[in-house]
Amino acid sequence: MKKYRITFLPSERIFDADDGETILDAAMKAGVYINASCGGNGSCGKCRIKVIEGNVVSTRHPKISRTDHDNGYRLACNSRPQGDVIVEVPLESQIDRSILQRKDRKPLILTASGLDQLIEKWKPDPPFFKVNLKLPEPTVDDNLSDFGRLVRELRKILKKDTISAELNVLKKMAGILRESVWKTTVTVAARNDGYEIVNIEPENKTLQNYAIVIDIGTTTVSGQILDLVNCGHDLCALAESSDYNSQIRYGDDVISRIMYSRKKNGLESLQKALVDTVNGIIHQLIRESDIKKSSISHLIFAGNTTMTHLFFGLDPKNIMLAPYTPVSNVYPLVSARDIGLDLEDHVYIQASPCVSSYVGGDIVAGVIGSGMSRSDKVTLYVDIGTNGEIVLGNKDWLVCASCSAGPAFEGGGIQFGMRAEKGAIEQLRLNPKNYEPMIITIGKEKPKGICGSGLIDCVSELFLARVLDQNGKFRRDLAVSRVREGESGYEYVVAYRENTRIHRDIVVTEVDLANLIRAKAALYAGCKVLLEDVGLTFHDVERIFIAGGFGHYIDIEKAQVIGLLPELPLERFIFIGNGSLLGARLFSFSKGFMEEAENISKMMTNIELSNSQRFMDEFVAACFLPHTDDKGFPKVLNKLN
Amino acid sequence: MKKYRITFLPSERIFDADDGETILDAAMKAGVYINASCGGNGSCGKCRIKVIEGNVVSTRHPKISRTDHDNGYRLACNSRPQGDVIVEVPLESQIDRSILQRKDRKPLILTASGLDQLIEKWKPDPPFFKVNLKLPEPTVDDNLSDFGRLVRELRKILKKDTISAELNVLKKMAGILRESVWKTTVTVAARNDGYEIVNIEPENKTLQNYAIVIDIGTTTVSGQILDLVNCGHDLCALAESSDYNSQIRYGDDVISRIMYSRKKNGLESLQKALVDTVNGIIHQLIRESDIKKSSISHLIFAGNTTMTHLFFGLDPKNIMLAPYTPVSNVYPLVSARDIGLDLEDHVYIQASPCVSSYVGGDIVAGVIGSGMSRSDKVTLYVDIGTNGEIVLGNKDWLVCASCSAGPAFEGGGIQFGMRAEKGAIEQLRLNPKNYEPMIITIGKEKPKGICGSGLIDCVSELFLARVLDQNGKFRRDLAVSRVREGESGYEYVVAYRENTRIHRDIVVTEVDLANLIRAKAALYAGCKVLLEDVGLTFHDVERIFIAGGFGHYIDIEKAQVIGLLPELPLERFIFIGNGSLLGARLFSFSKGFMEEAENISKMMTNIELSNSQRFMDEFVAACFLPHTDDKGFPKVLNKLN
Repeated sequence: MKKYRITFLPSERIFDADDGETILDAAMKAGVYINASCGGNGSCGKCRIKVIEGNVVSTRHPKISRTDHDNGYRLACNSRPQGDVIVEVPLESQIDRSILQRKDRKPLILTASGLDQLIEKWKPDPPFFKVNLKLPEPTVDDNLSDFGRLVRELRKILKKDTISAELNVLKKMAGILRESVWKTTVTVAARNDGYEIVNIEPENKTLQNYAIVIDIGTTTVSGQILDLVNCGHDLCALAESSDYNSQIRYGDDVISRIMYSRKKNGLESLQKALVDTVNGIIHQLIRESDIKKSSISHLIFAGNTTMTHLFFGLDPKNIMLAPYTPVSNVYPLVSARDIGLDLEDHVYIQASPCVSSYVGGDIVAGVIGSGMSRSDKVTLYVDIGTNGEIVLGNKDWLVCASCSAGPAFEGGGIQFGMRAEKGAIEQLRLNPKNYEPMIITIGKEKPKGICGSGLIDCVSELFLARVLDQNGKFRRDLAVSRVREGESGYEYVVAYRENTRIHRDIVVTEVDLANLIRAKAALYAGCKVLLEDVGLTFHDVERIFIAGGFGHYIDIEKAQVIGLLPELPLERFIFIGNGSLLGARLFSFSKGFMEEAENISKMMTNIELSNSQRFMDEFVAACFLPHTDDKGFPKVLNKLN
Repeated sequence: MKKYRITFLPSERIFDADDGETILDAAMKAGVYINASCGGNGSCGKCRIKVIEGNVVSTRHPKISRTDHDNGYRLACNSRPQGDVIVEVPLESQIDRSILQRKDRKPLILTASGLDQLIEKWKPDPPFFKVNLKLPEPTVDDNLSDFGRLVRELRKILKKDTISAELNVLKKMAGILRESVWKTTVTVAARNDGYEIVNIEPENKTLQNYAIVIDIGTTTVSGQILDLVNCGHDLCALAESSDYNSQIRYGDDVISRIMYSRKKNGLESLQKALVDTVNGIIHQLIRESDIKKSSISHLIFAGNTTMTHLFFGLDPKNIMLAPYTPVSNVYPLVSARDIGLDLEDHVYIQASPCVSSYVGGDIVAGVIGSGMSRSDKVTLYVDIGTNGEIVLGNKDWLVCASCSAGPAFEGGGIQFGMRAEKGAIEQLRLNPKNYEPMIITIGKEKPKGICGSGLIDCVSELFLARVLDQNGKFRRDLAVSRVREGESGYEYVVAYRENTRIHRDIVVTEVDLANLIRAKAALYAGCKVLLEDVGLTFHDVERIFIAGGFGHYIDIEKAQVIGLLPELPLERFIFIGNGSLLGARLFSFSKGFMEEAENISKMMTNIELSNSQRFMDEFVAACFLPHTDDKGFPKVLNKLN
């Protein structure tokens, strides 16, 4: 990709921006502070810069006079370099942000297309595979039944005696065999000590074998369609699609969904909403990949334990009641039509197995998908969300826990919190001199609220600027115009109403801060307890996998500043993206992974934190910025001093 | 049962009649000929007798004058002895019927309740059995999932690791376990190398385990409900029910049903009709036995290959097209709800396996049910119906064949033929002097037609009286008022219109005779070919099992006279009744029988007769009365001479 070098004056900070990036984007990444109140959509007109050398493309903004424009003044948020440029940041914005300068900040991003990481260790062996057969035509001397005839040939290939077929297959068999003059393709699944035929098609269809994988999140549902045959590993996903989980209308988190499931027809409504969402994704995947629905052989999904229960229509009630027992952690093969999925009758759904009520199939899939269960390296797998799930271990041992971090990272319990949607403040820098914020929103729209990563940025910046103390309280002794006493106590104004889309001031309150601190404390404390249980410390952790869509947007250093993540070298952090989907893909390509997952789900030691005194102690200790025991955070201490 | 001795004068024939039997019934059995034209309902007034000694109960008939009544004249058909009696048969009825005198005519009747025949050889081991469990309550330290907890206990009992559960079971599990305070009963089925839980109930329900067995005939569907636990073998059937197969409206025989299945929605209509019939039987069984529907664990049925296909909705088309290939001879377990049966979701249907297009699951079940596949004795199993199915063999070998006898035995292709329903002439004797018939109808109603057993009686009597020649043609040289030339050639009037319910003369025509002779010839020829194929003759056959509802009513000696059955000693013939139901019962009680049936269905040698020249030759040879080669019928020759 083309890069343009931007030199910011007077700091002479240099940054190589991608083609198309605005100067505001580049400044944010370079650690150059520029006033910006409207999230980058041009309405506040504050992010003035002056182009000294080189060309930028930008439209003239009404707040910049024609004379100023002719003199090179532009808004950083709507200016894009056309080559190397030198720009001057106006005095009111200037600040030495070297403290934030990031060297080598390149955590490895392992996305769902990075299956090659594991490539040497597995061979394709899909749970549902196709076999092409040419049968001898029946004669009076050889008038075996159609099924008997087919089995006779199939035995020669599969080398197993026990071969059965489902009623749906038998229903189609006579017609298909004769139409295609005894050339046929059967889809077969291994079953215990034999094989079962789950589908029959005319002619040779072995090259058309597709699977759908779905990650069912409490908030977001994502899917891919995979080509199981023409699989260049990276190229297997023919299409991707995602959507909000329609269950959101019944509550934001798993607990409120479970509460809803207890109402009359609640469980049915929740299941239907989720099935509708998944059907929408299936339709989009089929449309985009342009394959025939009849060529889809199976669907594999991974979700947390509650989502898995709700998708199957299993009663999730006891997941939320002590001692937190799910109905089951392993699930039978279920026919797609039995739960209302718009797939053909032969399609089976397979769920990633769960470990416990709060360590679900998404985590097990992630452990498989990230390869941590096949590696020597001691790895900490962290999925940051409403429930922070943590897995620690390597190929020899695995322990896991879930800590109910609360929904703060997803915008829940935060006055202006919102999910990472358009208009959410996702990045924020503070001018340490005047405490004015520089904000960028998702979609560069006027801000509507603040999402998890924005909140982490905000708290981290306020803390480093000493606007916040270690308890997460605003310093009362500071004359900061944006810090004020609001309806629910002290608050910091992130954006004034005239710059917001909601025509109200967007603030971060002390109540919000307390919620965020509890969330980060829970996750940190969970990791700590897990490590202690196996006699390790953070320093023994060779890799930290950050999973989940939200994790992707986290600024590791900011997260370390607030004590969400331990202060380990940045190169140990690896963003694996949607680990759940990564695992589901592997399950689709090779059934050995599902067996491995079932073993992992049974063998993994689940540490129940909810009633653990040690966890409570660690949690309380972590309810500070960055932590009561700040010896663990020398870099943060250094930045503060 | 109380018996009354009836002495018939002047022949002094003595017969011990059951209480309630009419003197006409008794005369028929004793071989005493009495005129009777109306089937025994009193309307013709011809069966006059005179009571010499003892009391009979009867209503005075208008055709008997008061004086005659006072002198002891009565109608035999409405007179019932009240003690031992002596009656005189009037001159016009008298005849020496010694030729028909039957000594020791007592073929063993093994009904579906005669399971004790096999009792030593099997132990109850139902395919779906119940296990009662008491689970430890979950605690924080032991918060396994509900299913995991249940499996942990079940493994201790079943000694198998692989235990799975269906989604429907998981759906109910959480609620049931908690309602019943962790006391539960699961219904378990063996599956390959493990077990599958198909149902869960609260508390201890091990004593309530019932099965339904169904015999699906082309004409009649019969069912029983079995108590799998409190099983005194004979007492297991709590209720029985049967009904006509509603598919009759789409055609009388399997071929016309298959023809109908090829119409638009034909297959669906046929399946629905049959499912409706079976649902009716299920409802009646549940009502009569007064058990809970939820206690029914499985349903096992046996039917011919076409009926099995239609019940499952499998395309039967190729059963009627050469080379006669069914879709399958073995069938998967199918959920009752999947085919629309009104049973609970956990109920599975299991079908008796078939051998070929025309040797179906009813025959395989019969082979199992009759015990012939476990016996040393060379046995010929004959199911007489539209398709005469024949199995020959013993525990070491089995061969089978089907010969399309045509529907004559079930009244098809016979001008006044009808099924064995009320008003059907089922017994007939001929006065060899004047060729007047003595007839008895089912239900003692005025005759409406003639059913299979009546037809065999009729032909046998006409032949022995030499009214018919060996070709089945009426002798033209005989002055018999009842033999006349009708619209379709020569015919014998069985009943004149004034004595019938249809107000038309009921006749047996030469066309009818030809059809019947073809039917009996096909069956006999089939047996002959099967025997020849294994190098045996009829004399090597140690037992002949006559199966099927129709077989029950056959008079073996009459059947021998026309050459339908070979002339073997009567004691070798055993009526086993509904062999299909007998087998289905065994399948329900012990899964080993189903495995045995599957082996039998695979191993049994099916001889395809439809294109066999040898069969054609034997068939042609058998198209005489009793047979071209009458050396095989010395008793008949003796009677004739």
